Amino acid sequence: MTPETQRQIVMAERPSGALALRHFKTVVSLIPPRPADAVLLRNIFVSIAPHARAVMQGPTHRPQLVAEELIPSSVIAEVIAGPADGPEPGSVVAATAGWQEYSVVPARAVRPLQKIGRLSHHMGLLGLNGLTAYFGIRKVASVRAGETVVISGAAGGVGHLAGQIARSAGARVVGITSSDEKNRILENQLGYSATVNWKSSSFLDDLHTACRRGADVYFDNVGGPLLEKMLPLIVDRGRIVCCGVTAQYDMDNPLPGPSDLAMQMIAKSLRMEGFLAANHKDSWNEALRELKELHESGQLTVLEDLRDGLASAPTALIEMLAGQNVGQLAVRLAPDPVGWRSE
Amino acid sequence: MTPETQRQIVMAERPSGALALRHFKTVVSLIPPRPADAVLLRNIFVSIAPHARAVMQGPTHRPQLVAEELIPSSVIAEVIAGPADGPEPGSVVAATAGWQEYSVVPARAVRPLQKIGRLSHHMGLLGLNGLTAYFGIRKVASVRAGETVVISGAAGGVGHLAGQIARSAGARVVGITSSDEKNRILENQLGYSATVNWKSSSFLDDLHTACRRGADVYFDNVGGPLLEKMLPLIVDRGRIVCCGVTAQYDMDNPLPGPSDLAMQMIAKSLRMEGFLAANHKDSWNEALRELKELHESGQLTVLEDLRDGLASAPTALIEMLAGQNVGQLAVRLAPDPVGWRSE
Repeated sequence: MTPETQRQIVMAERPSGALALRHFKTVVSLIPPRPADAVLLRNIFVSIAPHARAVMQGPTHRPQLVAEELIPSSVIAEVIAGPADGPEPGSVVAATAGWQEYSVVPARAVRPLQKIGRLSHHMGLLGLNGLTAYFGIRKVASVRAGETVVISGAAGGVGHLAGQIARSAGARVVGITSSDEKNRILENQLGYSATVNWKSSSFLDDLHTACRRGADVYFDNVGGPLLEKMLPLIVDRGRIVCCGVTAQYDMDNPLPGPSDLAMQMIAKSLRMEGFLAANHKDSWNEALRELKELHESGQLTVLEDLRDGLASAPTALIEMLAGQNVGQLAVRLAPDPVGWRSE
Repeated sequence: MTPETQRQIVMAERPSGALALRHFKTVVSLIPPRPADAVLLRNIFVSIAPHARAVMQGPTHRPQLVAEELIPSSVIAEVIAGPADGPEPGSVVAATAGWQEYSVVPARAVRPLQKIGRLSHHMGLLGLNGLTAYFGIRKVASVRAGETVVISGAAGGVGHLAGQIARSAGARVVGITSSDEKNRILENQLGYSATVNWKSSSFLDDLHTACRRGADVYFDNVGGPLLEKMLPLIVDRGRIVCCGVTAQYDMDNPLPGPSDLAMQMIAKSLRMEGFLAANHKDSWNEALRELKELHESGQLTVLEDLRDGLASAPTALIEMLAGQNVGQLAVRLAPDPVGWRSE
């Protein structure tokens, strides 16, 4: 029943400045033959993540994208065919693939999903964003009860989870976003103690008011000039978690970093650390169990923005980079397989 | 026998730009009366340290200096008088005081010196510089055998010790300084594997050549634009130790920080950490024992630049900030007390 061809979205040209639809192109291509040790997957969800923008700009932990190359993404997919010792046909896995309808990937590179929660949650809460938020707050920042944790990009896929994980550890959480509307959601639905809009003319005053006793942790999802504003507020032995750089992606040239960085780092004995969820693979199962428990016990609300159809992916990414989305953003290509609860 | 007055060097005016002699003034002032819980000290050595320049510019871990205020420094001093339960008269202590002949400080704030090594070594190897180098390499960077450690300000009071401590841990050590002359000393006398002169027109090429397999650790004593040059060379899981900011002191406005910082921190899971030796007070005795052993076993050469007389302190600091000194810089005000070996 698998067709011979599929639709893929590739990079049309390397973007210069803000991302636009012209930088993408939909192509129809042959689904490649499946090697003996690979699985053929039918993609159910493809992720919309800032990393896609990053590789269009330059190398990350993978090489830079070239024109006509598939936009990479993580996917959730149903196994159509595979080796006898691989995941069973009909089972659902997470994989690194791209914006396309089908994927052929090495069987050992897919991660079978436990049938827990809603399938879409495996794109966010129970996927890389949830794991990133979890390890960033728990392992990198080591957030403790009573601390003040400031989160930039606080309404994003990682941010909205990181804030709630910090709050569940007893921290006071301050969110920074680009709109009052997003801030209302954070305060009313997610239990943030305070929020600040960085586009507001009173931003610096608002930030100081929200952090009267300073900030113990700055969890940075944007990687831009906010760090320089935050530095004076961070207290002795404070931690800066470098988690994302959304503010940098739509730029040809990176912005200068904070002046006075080294002096502040030394005088206050600060630690700044970048990380990837992949660094903590040994603890993924434990983390997923805890994330699920936080959600089921009502301590963690998942915000999702699910779009329909492969063609909606470029617009979704453009809107994400413009800060227009709230929560986990993903594109659905196919309905959930039988057996996944759909509520 | 203690006189009623003493000479002190104070800040004449807040420097703007490069430090000069006009920013200092020698005054004669009364030695204050000694409170019951304080010691009167006769200073033997006063330190010449970049921190003196930092507090002339702005607050550090202490408030900014105001005009007519004593230049602060650590000192090594002989106890002249003190409370019965304090250090004995005639004993030698380290204290935080300033550029002056006598000091009156709380008895509990002085640190009695063990009579080991040369007294001058307690200004460097067995003082704050040695402890800073030790904890920076051992605890903050956690340098391991086989790693490449790049040190800026590599011929300075902290730098020349940090490089040798890293080498004694089995690391390959690359030094960055501002002169070929200093680099020859590092390579010929201190066992550096390679050195680079940042003033050379071939600096970037030289740096890449010296770090062919990248750098695991960047131990930064200067805090300036070198960090941006180093970032691309630092490998996965690399560490950046923020130890000093000599490059920033002679500036009215701090330089911008490295662009692309957050992206590099995340993609390579880097850790950047600032620290003070004071954070590790519980381990000072252990550290001093090991520093002494490294020196006595010939693994660690101490370079000293000792000047004579209080009046030489301002020039010494100006030269230090201009990168003209090698090793530990200090000013001697009085001969070693009886019982200290003088070789």
